[in-house]
Amino acid sequence: MLEGIDGSGKSTQARLLAGFLDAVSTAEPGATRLGSRLREVLLDSAGEPVSVRSEALLMAADRAQHVERVLIPNLRSGVWVVSDRFSASTLAYQGYGRGLRIAELTAVVRFATCGVTPDLQILLDVPVGVARSRMEQTATDRFEHLGAEFFTRVRDGYLALVAADPDRWQVVDGTEEVSVVEARIRDAVVGRLGPLPEAAGSR
Amino acid sequence: MLEGIDGSGKSTQARLLAGFLDAVSTAEPGATRLGSRLREVLLDSAGEPVSVRSEALLMAADRAQHVERVLIPNLRSGVWVVSDRFSASTLAYQGYGRGLRIAELTAVVRFATCGVTPDLQILLDVPVGVARSRMEQTATDRFEHLGAEFFTRVRDGYLALVAADPDRWQVVDGTEEVSVVEARIRDAVVGRLGPLPEAAGSR
Repeated sequence: MLEGIDGSGKSTQARLLAGFLDAVSTAEPGATRLGSRLREVLLDSAGEPVSVRSEALLMAADRAQHVERVLIPNLRSGVWVVSDRFSASTLAYQGYGRGLRIAELTAVVRFATCGVTPDLQILLDVPVGVARSRMEQTATDRFEHLGAEFFTRVRDGYLALVAADPDRWQVVDGTEEVSVVEARIRDAVVGRLGPLPEAAGSR
Repeated sequence: MLEGIDGSGKSTQARLLAGFLDAVSTAEPGATRLGSRLREVLLDSAGEPVSVRSEALLMAADRAQHVERVLIPNLRSGVWVVSDRFSASTLAYQGYGRGLRIAELTAVVRFATCGVTPDLQILLDVPVGVARSRMEQTATDRFEHLGAEFFTRVRDGYLALVAADPDRWQVVDGTEEVSVVEARIRDAVVGRLGPLPEAAGSR
Protein backbone atom coordinates (compact mmCIF):
# COMPACT_ATOMS: atom_id res chain seq x y z
CA MET A 1 0.00 0.00 0.00
CA LEU A 2 1.34 3.44 -0.85
CA GLU A 3 0.85 6.12 1.73
CA GLY A 4 1.80 9.77 2.02
CA ILE A 5 0.42 13.28 2.19
CA ASP A 6 -1.37 14.82 -0.78
CA GLY A 7 1.23 15.83 -3.35
CA SER A 8 3.71 13.11 -2.33
CA GLY A 9 3.44 11.50 -5.76
CA LYS A 10 1.98 8.25 -4.44
CA SER A 11 -0.83 8.00 -7.02
CA THR A 12 1.67 8.03 -9.88
CA GLN A 13 3.96 5.62 -8.08
CA ALA A 14 1.10 3.27 -7.16
CA ARG A 15 0.26 2.92 -10.85
CA LEU A 16 3.90 2.35 -11.80
CA LEU A 17 4.36 -0.26 -9.07
CA ALA A 18 1.15 -2.04 -10.05
CA GLY A 19 2.47 -2.28 -13.63
CA PHE A 20 5.78 -3.69 -12.38
CA LEU A 21 4.07 -6.30 -10.19
CA ASP A 22 1.28 -7.06 -12.70
CA ALA A 23 -0.99 -6.14 -9.81
CA VAL A 24 -4.48 -4.71 -9.55
CA SER A 25 -4.20 -0.97 -8.91
CA THR A 26 -6.79 0.60 -6.60
CA ALA A 27 -7.17 3.82 -4.64
CA GLU A 28 -9.07 4.96 -1.55
CA PRO A 29 -11.50 6.50 -1.17
CA GLY A 30 -13.66 5.51 -4.13
CA ALA A 31 -12.36 2.12 -5.33
CA THR A 32 -15.90 0.68 -5.48
CA ARG A 33 -19.22 2.01 -6.74
CA LEU A 34 -20.34 2.57 -3.16
CA GLY A 35 -17.00 4.20 -2.39
CA SER A 36 -17.30 6.51 -5.35
CA ARG A 37 -20.72 7.67 -4.09
CA LEU A 38 -19.31 8.18 -0.60
CA ARG A 39 -16.45 10.19 -2.05
CA GLU A 40 -19.02 12.45 -3.75
CA VAL A 41 -20.80 12.94 -0.42
CA LEU A 42 -17.50 13.84 1.27
CA LEU A 43 -16.50 16.25 -1.50
CA ASP A 44 -19.87 18.00 -1.62
CA SER A 45 -18.97 21.11 0.32
CA ALA A 46 -22.40 22.64 -0.45
CA GLY A 47 -23.86 20.51 2.34
CA GLU A 48 -23.34 20.88 6.05
CA PRO A 49 -19.82 20.37 7.44
CA VAL A 50 -19.08 16.68 7.99
CA SER A 51 -18.20 15.95 11.62
CA VAL A 52 -14.72 14.55 12.16
CA ARG A 53 -16.10 11.25 13.49
CA SER A 54 -18.46 10.93 10.54
CA GLU A 55 -15.56 11.57 8.18
CA ALA A 56 -13.54 8.78 9.82
CA LEU A 57 -16.52 6.40 9.71
CA LEU A 58 -17.20 7.19 6.04
CA MET A 59 -13.57 6.47 5.18
CA ALA A 60 -13.93 3.20 7.10
CA ALA A 61 -17.18 2.35 5.26
CA ASP A 62 -15.41 2.99 1.95
CA ARG A 63 -12.57 0.70 3.08
CA ALA A 64 -14.86 -2.11 4.23
CA GLN A 65 -16.43 -2.22 0.77
CA HIS A 66 -12.98 -2.05 -0.87
CA VAL A 67 -11.76 -4.96 1.25
CA GLU A 68 -14.79 -7.14 0.58
CA ARG A 69 -15.24 -6.45 -3.12
CA VAL A 70 -11.68 -5.83 -4.38
CA LEU A 71 -8.95 -6.93 -1.96
CA ILE A 72 -10.26 -10.27 -0.71
CA PRO A 73 -11.37 -11.61 -4.13
CA ASN A 74 -8.05 -10.63 -5.75
CA LEU A 75 -5.86 -11.93 -2.94
CA ARG A 76 -7.79 -15.22 -2.94
CA SER A 77 -7.09 -15.54 -6.69
CA GLY A 78 -3.37 -15.03 -6.07
CA VAL A 79 -3.34 -11.52 -7.56
CA TRP A 80 -1.30 -8.74 -5.93
CA VAL A 81 -3.09 -5.51 -5.13
CA VAL A 82 -1.39 -2.11 -4.93
CA SER A 83 -3.58 0.46 -3.23
CA ASP A 84 -3.10 4.21 -3.23
CA ARG A 85 -3.98 4.69 0.48
CA PHE A 86 -5.29 2.19 3.04
CA SER A 87 -5.77 2.01 6.82
CA ALA A 88 -2.78 4.19 7.67
CA SER A 89 -4.41 7.13 5.86
CA THR A 90 -7.25 7.16 8.38
CA LEU A 91 -4.83 7.11 11.28
CA ALA A 92 -2.66 9.84 9.74
CA TYR A 93 -5.44 12.15 8.49
CA GLN A 94 -8.32 11.70 10.94
CA GLY A 95 -6.04 10.77 13.86
CA TYR A 96 -2.89 12.87 13.74
CA GLY A 97 -4.38 15.46 11.36
CA ARG A 98 -7.89 15.93 12.80
CA GLY A 99 -7.09 14.99 16.39
CA LEU A 100 -9.13 11.81 16.95
CA ARG A 101 -7.59 9.31 19.37
CA ILE A 102 -5.41 6.73 17.62
CA ALA A 103 -6.56 3.85 19.86
CA GLU A 104 -10.23 4.49 19.09
CA LEU A 105 -9.55 4.91 15.37
CA THR A 106 -7.52 1.71 15.30
CA ALA A 107 -10.56 -0.23 16.55
CA VAL A 108 -12.72 1.28 13.79
CA VAL A 109 -10.09 0.55 11.12
CA ARG A 110 -9.79 -3.08 12.31
CA PHE A 111 -13.55 -3.48 12.13
CA ALA A 112 -13.51 -2.16 8.54
CA THR A 113 -10.62 -4.31 7.28
CA CYS A 114 -11.82 -7.52 8.93
CA GLY A 115 -8.23 -8.63 9.55
CA VAL A 116 -6.79 -7.83 6.10
CA THR A 117 -3.39 -6.19 6.60
CA PRO A 118 -0.91 -5.10 3.92
CA ASP A 119 2.27 -7.13 3.30
CA LEU A 120 4.11 -3.82 3.02
CA GLN A 121 3.28 -0.16 3.44
CA ILE A 122 5.44 2.34 1.61
CA LEU A 123 5.52 5.88 2.94
CA LEU A 124 6.43 8.31 0.18
CA ASP A 125 7.83 11.03 2.37
CA VAL A 126 8.11 14.61 1.14
CA PRO A 127 8.33 17.91 3.01
CA VAL A 128 4.98 19.70 3.20
CA GLY A 129 6.28 22.66 1.17
CA VAL A 130 7.23 20.41 -1.74
CA ALA A 131 3.90 18.59 -1.62
CA ARG A 132 1.94 21.83 -1.56
CA SER A 133 3.75 23.35 -4.51
CA ARG A 134 3.00 20.17 -6.48
CA MET A 135 -0.67 20.23 -5.47
CA GLU A 136 -1.13 23.73 -6.79
CA GLN A 137 -0.69 22.25 -10.26
CA THR A 138 -3.13 19.36 -9.84
CA ALA A 139 -6.73 18.53 -9.02
CA THR A 140 -8.46 19.81 -5.92
CA ASP A 141 -9.35 17.72 -2.93
CA ARG A 142 -11.34 18.32 0.21
CA PHE A 143 -8.18 18.45 2.31
CA GLU A 144 -6.42 20.95 0.11
CA HIS A 145 -7.91 24.03 1.69
CA LEU A 146 -6.36 22.92 4.97
CA GLY A 147 -3.23 24.70 6.00
CA ALA A 148 0.38 23.61 6.10
CA GLU A 149 -0.01 22.93 9.84
CA PHE A 150 -2.56 20.22 9.10
CA PHE A 151 -0.31 18.49 6.57
CA THR A 152 2.66 18.81 8.91
CA ARG A 153 0.66 16.92 11.56
CA VAL A 154 -0.28 14.29 8.98
CA ARG A 155 3.31 13.86 7.79
CA ASP A 156 4.59 13.65 11.37
CA GLY A 157 1.77 11.19 12.05
CA TYR A 158 2.91 8.93 9.23
CA LEU A 159 6.45 9.01 10.60
CA ALA A 160 5.10 8.11 14.05
CA LEU A 161 3.20 5.16 12.56
CA VAL A 162 6.42 3.97 10.88
CA ALA A 163 8.38 4.32 14.12
CA ALA A 164 5.73 2.31 16.01
CA ASP A 165 5.70 -0.61 13.55
CA PRO A 166 8.88 -0.49 11.43
CA ASP A 167 8.59 -4.07 10.14
CA ARG A 168 5.47 -3.22 8.14
CA TRP A 169 6.83 -0.02 6.61
CA GLN A 170 9.44 1.18 4.16
CA VAL A 171 10.05 4.92 3.87
CA VAL A 172 11.06 6.24 0.43
CA ASP A 173 12.20 9.81 -0.22
CA GLY A 174 9.56 11.21 -2.57
CA THR A 175 11.38 14.39 -3.55
CA GLU A 176 13.47 12.82 -6.34
CA GLU A 177 12.55 12.42 -10.03
CA VAL A 178 9.67 10.02 -10.74
CA SER A 179 12.00 7.39 -12.26
CA VAL A 180 14.37 7.53 -9.29
CA VAL A 181 11.51 7.13 -6.80
CA GLU A 182 10.08 4.32 -8.94
CA ALA A 183 13.37 2.40 -8.78
CA ARG A 184 13.65 2.87 -5.02
CA ILE A 185 10.13 1.58 -4.49
CA ARG A 186 10.91 -1.48 -6.64
CA ASP A 187 14.05 -2.12 -4.58
CA ALA A 188 12.05 -1.76 -1.37
CA VAL A 189 9.36 -4.18 -2.55
CA VAL A 190 11.84 -6.79 -3.83
CA GLY A 191 13.93 -6.43 -0.68
CA ARG A 192 10.92 -6.96 1.52
CA LEU A 193 8.77 -9.40 -0.39
CA GLY A 194 11.45 -11.44 -2.20
CA PRO A 195 12.40 -11.80 -5.88
CA LEU A 196 9.69 -11.23 -8.47
CA PRO A 197 7.72 -12.53 -10.33
CA GLU A 198 8.09 -15.64 -8.16
CA ALA A 199 6.69 -13.73 -5.17
CA ALA A 200 3.69 -12.62 -7.19
CA GLY A 201 3.09 -16.19 -8.29
CA SER A 202 3.23 -17.45 -4.74
CA ARG A 203 0.11 -15.60 -3.64
CA MET B 1 -34.98 6.75 22.24
CA LEU B 2 -37.60 4.53 20.65
CA GLU B 3 -36.46 1.21 19.30
CA GLY B 4 -38.14 -1.74 17.63
CA ILE B 5 -38.41 -3.69 14.42
CA ASP B 6 -39.90 -2.12 11.29
CA GLY B 7 -43.66 -2.05 11.70
CA SER B 8 -43.56 -1.78 15.50
CA GLY B 9 -45.20 1.65 15.38
CA LYS B 10 -42.24 3.47 16.90
CA SER B 11 -42.16 6.31 14.34
CA THR B 12 -45.74 7.28 15.20
CA GLN B 13 -45.06 6.90 18.93
CA ALA B 14 -41.80 8.88 18.75
CA ARG B 15 -43.71 11.84 17.31
CA LEU B 16 -46.45 11.55 19.94
CA LEU B 17 -43.91 11.33 22.77
CA ALA B 18 -41.96 14.31 21.42
CA GLY B 19 -45.18 16.33 21.45
CA PHE B 20 -45.91 15.30 25.05
CA LEU B 21 -42.38 16.19 26.20
CA ASP B 22 -42.11 19.31 24.04
CA ALA B 23 -39.00 17.62 22.71
CA VAL B 24 -37.14 17.73 19.41
CA SER B 25 -38.17 14.72 17.35
CA THR B 26 -35.53 13.07 15.17
CA ALA B 27 -35.05 9.77 13.37
CA GLU B 28 -32.12 7.67 12.21
CA PRO B 29 -30.88 7.25 9.62
CA GLY B 30 -31.21 10.61 7.90
CA ALA B 31 -31.67 13.18 10.68
CA THR B 32 -29.05 15.50 9.14
CA ARG B 33 -28.32 16.61 5.58
CA LEU B 34 -25.32 14.29 5.49
CA GLY B 35 -27.45 11.51 6.96
CA SER B 36 -30.13 12.02 4.37
CA ARG B 37 -27.55 11.64 1.59
CA LEU B 38 -26.18 8.50 3.26
CA ARG B 39 -29.69 7.11 3.50
CA GLU B 40 -30.06 7.63 -0.26
CA VAL B 41 -26.80 5.76 -0.85
CA LEU B 42 -28.02 2.87 1.34
CA LEU B 43 -31.41 2.74 -0.38
CA ASP B 44 -30.02 2.85 -3.90
CA SER B 45 -30.36 -0.81 -4.78
CA ALA B 46 -29.25 -0.11 -8.38
CA GLY B 47 -25.66 -0.02 -7.12
CA GLU B 48 -23.53 -2.91 -5.95
CA PRO B 49 -24.58 -4.72 -2.76
CA VAL B 50 -23.37 -2.88 0.34
CA SER B 51 -21.13 -5.09 2.49
CA VAL B 52 -22.43 -5.75 5.99
CA ARG B 53 -19.50 -3.94 7.57
CA SER B 54 -19.96 -0.93 5.29
CA GLU B 55 -23.63 -0.83 6.21
CA ALA B 56 -22.77 -0.77 9.92
CA LEU B 57 -20.14 1.94 9.38
CA LEU B 58 -22.55 4.06 7.31
CA MET B 59 -25.16 3.82 10.07
CA ALA B 60 -22.45 4.86 12.53
CA ALA B 61 -21.39 7.79 10.30
CA ASP B 62 -25.02 8.90 10.13
CA ARG B 63 -25.21 8.67 13.94
CA ALA B 64 -21.99 10.61 14.54
CA GLN B 65 -23.36 13.50 12.50
CA HIS B 66 -26.72 13.25 14.30
CA VAL B 67 -24.99 13.37 17.69
CA GLU B 68 -22.78 16.33 16.82
CA ARG B 69 -25.32 18.46 14.96
CA VAL B 70 -28.63 17.61 16.66
CA LEU B 71 -28.27 15.80 19.98
CA ILE B 72 -25.40 17.66 21.64
CA PRO B 73 -26.61 21.20 20.77
CA ASN B 74 -30.16 20.44 21.96
CA LEU B 75 -29.13 18.67 25.15
CA ARG B 76 -26.77 21.55 25.97
CA SER B 77 -29.69 23.95 25.56
CA GLY B 78 -31.80 21.92 27.98
CA VAL B 79 -34.07 20.55 25.26
CA TRP B 80 -35.21 16.90 25.33
CA VAL B 81 -34.66 14.87 22.19
CA VAL B 82 -36.78 11.87 21.20
CA SER B 83 -35.13 9.81 18.50
CA ASP B 84 -36.74 7.15 16.37
CA ARG B 85 -33.79 4.70 16.53
CA PHE B 86 -30.31 5.15 18.00
CA SER B 87 -27.33 2.95 18.89
CA ALA B 88 -29.38 -0.11 19.78
CA SER B 89 -30.66 -0.30 16.19
CA THR B 90 -27.13 -0.97 14.93
CA LEU B 91 -26.62 -3.72 17.50
CA ALA B 92 -30.01 -5.28 16.75
CA TYR B 93 -29.97 -5.02 12.94
CA GLN B 94 -26.30 -5.30 11.95
CA GLY B 95 -25.36 -7.41 14.98
CA TYR B 96 -28.18 -9.84 15.77
CA GLY B 97 -29.79 -9.47 12.33
CA ARG B 98 -26.78 -9.50 10.00
CA GLY B 99 -24.45 -11.51 12.23
CA LEU B 100 -21.66 -9.03 13.06
CA ARG B 101 -20.05 -9.52 16.48
CA ILE B 102 -21.71 -7.41 19.18
CA ALA B 103 -18.42 -6.57 20.94
CA GLU B 104 -16.88 -5.19 17.73
CA LEU B 105 -20.05 -3.27 16.85
CA THR B 106 -20.24 -1.83 20.35
CA ALA B 107 -16.77 -0.27 19.87
CA VAL B 108 -17.87 1.32 16.57
CA VAL B 109 -21.10 2.62 18.11
CA ARG B 110 -19.19 4.13 21.05
CA PHE B 111 -16.83 5.85 18.65
CA ALA B 112 -19.80 7.34 16.77
CA THR B 113 -21.72 8.57 19.81
CA CYS B 114 -18.72 10.06 21.58
CA GLY B 115 -20.13 9.14 24.99
CA VAL B 116 -23.71 10.33 24.44
CA THR B 117 -26.09 7.72 25.88
CA PRO B 118 -29.89 7.88 26.10
CA ASP B 119 -31.59 8.50 29.45
CA LEU B 120 -34.10 5.84 28.47
CA GLN B 121 -34.58 3.41 25.61
CA ILE B 122 -38.09 2.18 24.94
CA LEU B 123 -38.47 -1.06 23.05
CA LEU B 124 -41.82 -1.19 21.29
CA ASP B 125 -42.13 -4.93 21.11
CA VAL B 126 -44.43 -6.61 18.60
CA PRO B 127 -44.41 -10.11 17.12
CA VAL B 128 -42.82 -10.24 13.67
CA GLY B 129 -46.08 -11.34 12.03
CA VAL B 130 -47.93 -8.27 13.33
CA ALA B 131 -45.11 -5.95 12.23
CA ARG B 132 -44.97 -7.45 8.75
CA SER B 133 -48.70 -7.16 8.16
CA ARG B 134 -48.48 -3.48 9.16
CA MET B 135 -45.51 -2.89 6.87
CA GLU B 136 -47.38 -4.18 3.85
CA GLN B 137 -49.53 -1.06 4.10
CA THR B 138 -46.69 1.46 4.45
CA ALA B 139 -43.59 2.73 2.71
CA THR B 140 -40.80 0.46 1.57
CA ASP B 141 -37.44 0.20 3.25
CA ARG B 142 -34.23 -1.58 2.39
CA PHE B 143 -34.80 -4.15 5.12
CA GLU B 144 -38.31 -5.00 4.06
CA HIS B 145 -37.36 -7.55 1.44
CA LEU B 146 -35.64 -9.52 4.20
CA GLY B 147 -37.51 -12.51 5.50
CA ALA B 148 -39.33 -13.12 8.76
CA GLU B 149 -36.24 -15.00 10.02
CA PHE B 150 -34.21 -11.79 9.81
CA PHE B 151 -36.76 -9.77 11.78
CA THR B 152 -37.10 -12.57 14.30
CA ARG B 153 -33.34 -12.35 14.93
CA VAL B 154 -33.61 -8.56 15.26
CA ARG B 155 -36.54 -8.78 17.68
CA ASP B 156 -34.77 -11.44 19.75
CA GLY B 157 -31.67 -9.25 19.62
CA TYR B 158 -33.54 -6.29 21.07
CA LEU B 159 -34.84 -8.51 23.88
CA ALA B 160 -31.27 -9.70 24.55
CA LEU B 161 -30.08 -6.09 24.73
CA VAL B 162 -32.83 -5.32 27.26
CA ALA B 163 -31.93 -8.38 29.34
CA ALA B 164 -28.26 -7.35 29.37
CA ASP B 165 -28.92 -3.79 30.54
CA PRO B 166 -32.44 -3.60 32.06
CA ASP B 167 -31.87 -0.27 33.83
CA ARG B 168 -31.62 1.58 30.52
CA TRP B 169 -34.66 -0.03 28.92
CA GLN B 170 -38.42 -0.13 29.21
CA VAL B 171 -40.33 -2.65 27.11
CA VAL B 172 -43.81 -1.62 25.93
CA ASP B 173 -46.23 -3.98 24.18
CA GLY B 174 -46.71 -2.43 20.74
CA THR B 175 -49.65 -4.56 19.62
CA GLU B 176 -52.34 -2.40 21.29
CA GLU B 177 -54.19 0.59 19.84
CA VAL B 178 -52.04 3.68 19.20
CA SER B 179 -53.62 5.62 22.11
CA VAL B 180 -53.09 2.73 24.55
CA VAL B 181 -49.43 2.37 23.54
CA GLU B 182 -49.02 6.15 23.77
CA ALA B 183 -50.32 6.16 27.36
CA ARG B 184 -48.03 3.29 28.35
CA ILE B 185 -45.01 5.04 26.90
CA ARG B 186 -45.91 8.22 28.84
CA ASP B 187 -46.22 6.18 32.03
CA ALA B 188 -42.87 4.56 31.35
CA VAL B 189 -41.16 7.88 30.72
CA VAL B 190 -42.66 9.58 33.78
CA GLY B 191 -41.92 6.53 35.91
CA ARG B 192 -38.31 6.51 34.85
CA LEU B 193 -37.43 10.15 34.39
CA GLY B 194 -39.64 11.75 37.04
CA PRO B 195 -42.64 14.09 36.85
CA LEU B 196 -42.90 16.36 33.84
CA PRO B 197 -42.50 19.15 32.79
CA GLU B 198 -40.11 19.67 35.71
CA ALA B 199 -37.89 16.90 34.39
CA ALA B 200 -37.75 18.52 31.00
CA GLY B 201 -36.90 21.85 32.58
CA SER B 202 -34.07 20.34 34.57
CA ARG B 203 -32.05 19.45 31.54
